[in-house]
Formats: sequence, structure tokens, C-alpha cells
Amino acid sequence: MARRGEGAVVAAWRDVVHEIIFEADTPAGKAFDVALLILIAASVITVSLESVARIQTRIGGGLVAAEWGFTVLFTIEYVLRLLSVRRPWRYALSFFGVVDLLAILPTYISLFVPGTQSLLVIRGLRLLRIVRVFKLGRFLGEADLLMTAVRQSRRKIMLFVGAVLTIVAILGAVMYLIEGPEAGFTSIPRGMYWAIVTVTTVGYGDIVPATVSGQILAAVLMLMGYGIIAIPTGIFSVELIQASQRPVSTQACPSCSAEGHDADADFCKFCGHAL
Amino acid sequence: MARRGEGAVVAAWRDVVHEIIFEADTPAGKAFDVALLILIAASVITVSLESVARIQTRIGGGLVAAEWGFTVLFTIEYVLRLLSVRRPWRYALSFFGVVDLLAILPTYISLFVPGTQSLLVIRGLRLLRIVRVFKLGRFLGEADLLMTAVRQSRRKIMLFVGAVLTIVAILGAVMYLIEGPEAGFTSIPRGMYWAIVTVTTVGYGDIVPATVSGQILAAVLMLMGYGIIAIPTGIFSVELIQASQRPVSTQACPSCSAEGHDADADFCKFCGHAL
Amino acid sequence: MARRGEGAVVAAWRDVVHEIIFEADTPAGKAFDVALLILIAASVITVSLESVARIQTRIGGGLVAAEWGFTVLFTIEYVLRLLSVRRPWRYALSFFGVVDLLAILPTYISLFVPGTQSLLVIRGLRLLRIVRVFKLGRFLGEADLLMTAVRQSRRKIMLFVGAVLTIVAILGAVMYLIEGPEAGFTSIPRGMYWAIVTVTTVGYGDIVPATVSGQILAAVLMLMGYGIIAIPTGIFSVELIQASQRPVSTQACPSCSAEGHDADADFCKFCGHAL
Amino acid sequence: MARRGEGAVVAAWRDVVHEIIFEADTPAGKAFDVALLILIAASVITVSLESVARIQTRIGGGLVAAEWGFTVLFTIEYVLRLLSVRRPWRYALSFFGVVDLLAILPTYISLFVPGTQSLLVIRGLRLLRIVRVFKLGRFLGEADLLMTAVRQSRRKIMLFVGAVLTIVAILGAVMYLIEGPEAGFTSIPRGMYWAIVTVTTVGYGDIVPATVSGQILAAVLMLMGYGIIAIPTGIFSVELIQASQRPVSTQACPSCSAEGHDADADFCKFCGHAL
Repeated sequence: MARRGEGAVVAAWRDVVHEIIFEADTPAGKAFDVALLILIAASVITVSLESVARIQTRIGGGLVAAEWGFTVLFTIEYVLRLLSVRRPWRYALSFFGVVDLLAILPTYISLFVPGTQSLLVIRGLRLLRIVRVFKLGRFLGEADLLMTAVRQSRRKIMLFVGAVLTIVAILGAVMYLIEGPEAGFTSIPRGMYWAIVTVTTVGYGDIVPATVSGQILAAVLMLMGYGIIAIPTGIFSVELIQASQRPVSTQACPSCSAEGHDADADFCKFCGHAL
Repeated sequence: MARRGEGAVVAAWRDVVHEIIFEADTPAGKAFDVALLILIAASVITVSLESVARIQTRIGGGLVAAEWGFTVLFTIEYVLRLLSVRRPWRYALSFFGVVDLLAILPTYISLFVPGTQSLLVIRGLRLLRIVRVFKLGRFLGEADLLMTAVRQSRRKIMLFVGAVLTIVAILGAVMYLIEGPEAGFTSIPRGMYWAIVTVTTVGYGDIVPATVSGQILAAVLMLMGYGIIAIPTGIFSVELIQASQRPVSTQACPSCSAEGHDADADFCKFCGHAL
Repeated sequence: MARRGEGAVVAAWRDVVHEIIFEADTPAGKAFDVALLILIAASVITVSLESVARIQTRIGGGLVAAEWGFTVLFTIEYVLRLLSVRRPWRYALSFFGVVDLLAILPTYISLFVPGTQSLLVIRGLRLLRIVRVFKLGRFLGEADLLMTAVRQSRRKIMLFVGAVLTIVAILGAVMYLIEGPEAGFTSIPRGMYWAIVTVTTVGYGDIVPATVSGQILAAVLMLMGYGIIAIPTGIFSVELIQASQRPVSTQACPSCSAEGHDADADFCKFCGHAL
Repeated sequence: MARRGEGAVVAAWRDVVHEIIFEADTPAGKAFDVALLILIAASVITVSLESVARIQTRIGGGLVAAEWGFTVLFTIEYVLRLLSVRRPWRYALSFFGVVDLLAILPTYISLFVPGTQSLLVIRGLRLLRIVRVFKLGRFLGEADLLMTAVRQSRRKIMLFVGAVLTIVAILGAVMYLIEGPEAGFTSIPRGMYWAIVTVTTVGYGDIVPATVSGQILAAVLMLMGYGIIAIPTGIFSVELIQASQRPVSTQACPSCSAEGHDADADFCKFCGHAL
């Protein structure tokens, strides 16, 4: 009896922790999410500042201390996550479980593996934690709507990206033939890199056409890139309009159970029964 | 009695001034707004020209005179604003009250504080007055509509900015690891600066990837930046469509119960019964 | 009688010429428009090529001949336009009349005014003739629709441009104070030029921030420019949707003459009379 | 009889091959399309890598072997296409037939024509095969929808491109007159190239205005380019909305004459009568 009571306490405790850590409905859950967000941002800033030579030499010690602080807090969070879920292995092997582990591992590894450069690389893995933000965001209705629109327009957008890449591949190769290595077009892949820089209207200016025919082709590519941005924008706008439109009535016909009636429909449009 | 009459005259005078300065409905109010707009623009141009060395040496005296002219006019305006509102302190401490004060203060301070550079900095505060333009614009229905759409889409846009910043943080760090200081990626924050320059398709070209893997990653980031601009555009378009749609009345016809009438409808469009 | 007949013949002749030159409904009118378009394009190309030093030295004679050819043809067209309209002065003083005159004048002036450089400048006026393209385009329903949407969204777009210019003015001045002349920010106007280059995502790279705080500010400006492009796009899309939407019924109420009823309305929504 | 049977077997065999190669409805057809897509991508990568000097010297032999492999496979495919269509000449002279031939010809020609550079140029023709991707894509409903919207908005977009080119021509010429050869504006065509680089917000930075008036004009052009991108985006969005809208049936209810029913409605949504 005492055992069962103890088990029940543990189960209840686990439920509370689960609600705080994994859900965002309760005030405690929201506070946890916000605190986690701030911690992750602070940890990202710490890793970033460590890479700045001047700051590293001046307050490097403080940054290391902060890093250990974040690691301990993230470790506690990781352990609590493991304890509060029903199937710990499933969480540990999930995408977010792996990211959470990668965020704390580098600091512990640095105790055993010496050497600055390799350390730096693995420490960078901590940055992956930022994606947690979207786990938080996922609870918002806004993100759901955006995700629906993105998912709906996925195939059209891929078709568009395919078209852009085809243009890039062909024009990148043509520019390689026209311009040659003097102007920086030393190979077809480099021509394609230039074409992407141009069609996306980034325009670094590290490689620019030098010949007249090259400049004419570049002008055509620029106008294309300028104009065809309208296509993904149009695709996404339309999907978002459809995803956010006054939903067709959620009422199901009492007679034939058909759904998808207009909001102003009085009778089922499939069987004629009154709604 | 005379006192009360005098008080009434002052109150009436205050109302007239208030209407001219704070409102834009009357011809006098509109004229004041337009005059103020021209004065602010002229003052901004004066401050800007003072910073040009060649112009400063040639007509510096004229610019100083113009500056004193603007300061006197803005001071009169500020005093009138203080006198014409019922609660002067509330205005003085409001955002626009502080901006209006900051616009006139620098010139007076320059009488007591010598030194060119510090003067220049505080004089720059005058530029803040430009935001008054939006106070003017706020009276237009157009600005209201835009503001509604911006406010409605605020959370979605912030989610989008969050996503962009996450991409920027991760790719900025990865590029720092790939490229290293030779190509200009001297630290992670600098990598992030490059990532923002690239993802927003600005593309200064002050930092560009030199290695093949860096260029491939840059190409991916460019295509992302080129494509995901569709998201805020779609979000804003949808909100604007919803904000500008002729509002549909929620009223149902008392005779046939039909809904979906226009907000300005007096009779049911399906049965002709008065609403 | 012969005089009157002669006058009628002249009037009829004038009507035919007017229809060909000024209208695009008949096959002859369309053919004239297309021919004019080709002539203008050829004339623009000629003026452009004349400015290329290498081509000028090689086939300069041919270009001069071509230029005289175009001038003679455009002169004939100009005279025909003057003759075929009822009020020649009104046409001559209209925008297109002045442009048409400016297109032919430079070549005749070049007979009397010697000197290469001044000649070049006035010859460039010929390029203004390109705007005739839109006179042609104006007959298309498509251009009408676009123009309606542009006109409708004009005030909102101007508000948006005002907001962008305010951001540009403030940030341009702040960057001047932060960066100083070393990084190329030699004056506030130059800072504003940089801000426009950045906010519009052009990003020449001729002036770039060198300090950390300057780069942070630049990053904010870039993200702003990247995001707020959504605003004019949304504005224009919505106006175009409204301009091209299935028009609310054109039917006027037979009882109260009210218009603007929905296409599916059976009764006037203002007076309840059957439509 | 045996002959006819043999002919029937050949005809049946041809139908099967035709279905696999030219259609994408059956599993075999889809598998063929995917395999072809991968082959084309691999062949594009091979051609691209061959142009990189360092890779060419190291694994040039492997690349030549791969190229011959692709050529043989594409030749088999070309022959099968010729055999399986009813009118081989019509296919051979069609756009895709010519592209398919150009993809295999260069390798065979390289057996007879020696010399590296000329070889490289003709080998680049293989890249044209990428357009086959859209032949695959054409079967998707998504591509159809996009194509419809693009076709519908074609004339409006051309009008827009015409307007952009007019701005480019005029401002390119004006900048040539203002800036002159010192700043890189050596001719009007070069000024137009700069104007296209600027108005499309690419902004290489290879030619930048040096004078104050040039920079003011450039700023105007940038703001134009930044703002008018809204026009094609709006055009395409509206066309896509109209192309993807759930078609409304034109059928009227025989009982109450109500219209605006969905295309899939069987009963009137207002009175419940069968449509």
C-alpha cells in the first residue's frame, strides 16, 4: 500500500514536471519556456563572444565560467526531461533529444580532450539548441498557420527552386564559356556560384562579368531574378489566404455526415437535408 | 465676473490653439501640419548640410542662422503645445513631448557647451523630429489600415524574424568554422554579420566565402533568403486583405435569418425584410 | 461647292490620319504603333551606341546617317500629328507633344551648334521618346488595371516611402556619428546614401560599416529593409485584387437607384425593393 | 498470320516502351522519370567538374569514363524514344528531340574533332538536358497551376518589364551624362548595365556613382527598384488566386434560382432543392 502510494507520488510528480517542461499551457510552463529561451540566447551569445579574439583574451575566464553554468543548467533540464517522460529512450533518440544532448556534451568532452581548435568546433554544436525556439513556437496558433501554408506550398516552391537551379546551371555554364578565367569564372561550378549570387539579387561583386556579351547575359539574369521572386511570394500568399480564410462551416450534415459546407448554407449541398 | 469671463476667453483661446496644433480636421489645422512638415524637412536638411565639410566652410554662417531660426520657431511651437493642453506635464513626458524638447534643446546647450564634435552629436537629436510626420500621418485612414495590418501580423512576423535569426546564428557559426579568419570570418559575430548581409540579399561583398564548401553554404543561404522573403510578404498581404475587407455584418435577417449582409445594409438581400 | 468638297476631303483625310496615328483600334493604327515602337527602339540603340568610343570611331558615319534617318521620319510623324489634330497648339504643348519635339530638335540644333560634348547631352533627349511606349500600352486593358491599382495604392505607398525615408534619415545620421569619416561616412547626406543602399538591399559595398556597433546597426537596417518590402507588396496586391475582383453587381436599384449590390442580391439592401 | 502476329507484338512492345518513357502515370513510368532525373543531374555534375582544373588533372580519366557511360545510356534512351513514337521525325524535330540529340552528339563528335577548348564548348550543350526536368514536372497539377498563372499574367508582366527597361534606358543615359567615364560610366550601354544592376537591387558595386548628383539619382533608382518589385508580385498573386480558386458553379437552383453554388454541390444550399 505504501509502495503504491509512493509510486503514485512519483507518478504525480512526473506529471507536474512533464507539464512544466513539455507543455506551455500553464503559467509555470510558460515561465519555464521563457526562462529556457533566455538561457539559450545567453549561451549562444557566450559561444559567439568566445570566438572574438580580443574579448577572449580579456574576459575569457568569465566566459568559461558562464559556459559551465549553462552546461550545468542544461544538464539538469536534460535529466528532468529524461525522468519525466514515460519512454526516456524515445525522447533521447528523438531529434530534440539528440540536440539537447549535443548542447551539453561538448563542455564535458573538453575536460578529457585538450586542444583549442577541435574544442571550438564541438562547442559550436551548442548553437543547435536555438531550434528549441521553434518547439516553443509550435504551441502558438500563428506558427501552425504558417507551417500549414509552408507545407501546402512545399511542392510548388520546390518546382520553383528547380526552375531557378536549372536557369543557374545553364547560365553559369554559358558565362564560363563567355567570360573565361580572366574575369574570375575559372570553372562551371564557379559560374553557377556567380549565377546564384546574381539571380538572388545578393550581388557580392566578387565575380563580375567583364565582356559586353557577359554583361548582357548578366542583365537578363538579374531581370529574371528580380521578376521571378514574384512566383514564390504569390504561391505562399495564396496558400496563406486559403489557410486563414473564414473556414467553410465545421458543421457536419446530420443526415449524410458530409462536411465542408459554406458558412451560409442552410441545407446540406450533398443530400439536401436541413443543416 | 470679469475674472470668469477672462478665464473663459483663455479657455476658448486654448481650445482654438489646441485644435490648430493637435488636430488636422480644420483648414487651419491642416495648414499648420503642412507648415510644420516643411519646417522639419528644412531643419533636417540644414543639420545634414552642416555635416558636409565643404558646405560648412562656405556657407556655415547661413546654416547657423537657419538653425537658430528653426530653434526659435520650434520653441514657440513647444510653448504653445504646453499652454494649449489641459495637462502640460503629461504632454511633456509623452514620447512626442520628449522628442519636441530634444529638437530644441541642442541649440540652446551649444551656447554654454563649447566644442565642435560633442555639439554635432547632440545637434543630431533634432533629426528625431521627423517622427512627427507619422503623428500627422496617423490622421489618415490609410495609415490606420496599414497599422492595423502591421499590428495583426506582428506576432507572425516576429516568428519569422526569429526563424531568420536562428538560420543566421547557425550558418554564421558554421561559416566561421569553415572559412576561418583568412576570408574575413574572424569571429562568430562577424560570421553572423555576413549571414545577415547575405540572407537579406544586401550582399556588400566586404566579406565573401573563399573556399568551395563555404561558397556552397553561401549559395544555400542566398536561395533561402531569396525564397523566404515570400513569407512576411504573404503574411502582410493576408492581414491587409482581412483588414481592408468590407466588414460583413453579424446581423441575421429577422424574417429569413439569412446572414452575411454588408455592414451598411438596411434590408435583407435574400428576402427584402428590414434588418 | 468645290471648296466645300475640298474641305470635306481634307477633313476626311485628317480623320483617317488621326485614327492611324492616335488610335490603336484599326489594323492600320496597330501597324503604325508597332512600326513606331520599332523605330523608337532603333533610335535609342543608335544614341546608345554612339556613346561607345570604339563603335563611334569605327562606324560613326553610319550612326550619324541612321540618326538623320530617324530624325526625318520622326519629323514627318510630328508634322502629321500637328496636322491631324483639331487643336494643334494643345497637342504641341501637351506632355507628349513636347517630348515628340524634343526628340527631333537636337539633330537640327547640331547643324548650328558645334562641339561634341554639348551635342551629346542634347542628343540624349531623344531617349525621352521611349515613354511613348506607354501611350501605346495605355490602350491595353491590362495597363488600365495596373494603373488603377497603382493610383488606388498611391497614398499608402507614399506613406510607406515616407516611413522608409525617415528610417534612412535617422539611421544615416546615427551611422555618421558612429562610424565617422574613416569608413567613408564623411557626412550625414553620405550616411543617408549608405542607408538607402542598405535598406533597399542593393548593397554596393562602396561604403561599409567598420566598427562593431556600426555593423550591428547595419544588420538591423538590413533586416528592416528585408522585412518591410512586404508592406508595399501587400498594399499593391490587395489593391490589385480589389481592382480585378468580380465587380459588385452593376445593377442599380429600380426604386432608390442605389448601386454597389452584391452579385447574388435579390433585393436592394438599402430600400428592400426587388432588384 | 505470323507476320501480323509479329507486327502486333512489335506494336504492343512499342506501346509499353512509350508508356514507360513518355508517360508518368504507371509505377514503371515514374521509376523511369526518377532514374532519368538522377542521370541528368549526375551528367550535369560531371560536365561541371570537368571544368575545374584541379579536379580535371586528378580524376580526369574517371570523368571521361563517366561521360561515355552517360552518353551510351542517353543514346539508348534516344533510340528507344525514336522507336516507340508513331512519327519519329516529328519527335526528332521537336524541341525536346533536338535537346536530346544535342546531349549525346558532343561526346561522339569529340572522337573526330580534337582540341580542348572547342570540345568544352560543345560538351556544355549537354547541360540543356536539364530542361527535361520540366517535362517531368509538367505532369504535376502544381506546375499546371503555376503555368496558367504565369501565362495569364504574361502581358501584364511584359508591360512591367517594359516600364523597368524604359526607366533603365533613361536613367542609364542620364547617369552617363552626369558621371562620365571617370566613375566607370564609359558609355550609355554601360550606364544601362549599371541601372539594371541597381534597379534589380543586385548591386555588384563594380560601377558606383561618385558625384553627389549621381548618388541622389542612384538613391531614387534604388527606391524605385525596391518599391516597384511590388507590382509583378501583386500581378502574379492575383492571377494565382484566380487560377486556384474553388470554381463556383454557374448553375442556378431550379426551385429558388439561387446561384453561387459550389461546383460539387448536388442540392441548393439555400432551399435544399436538387440541382
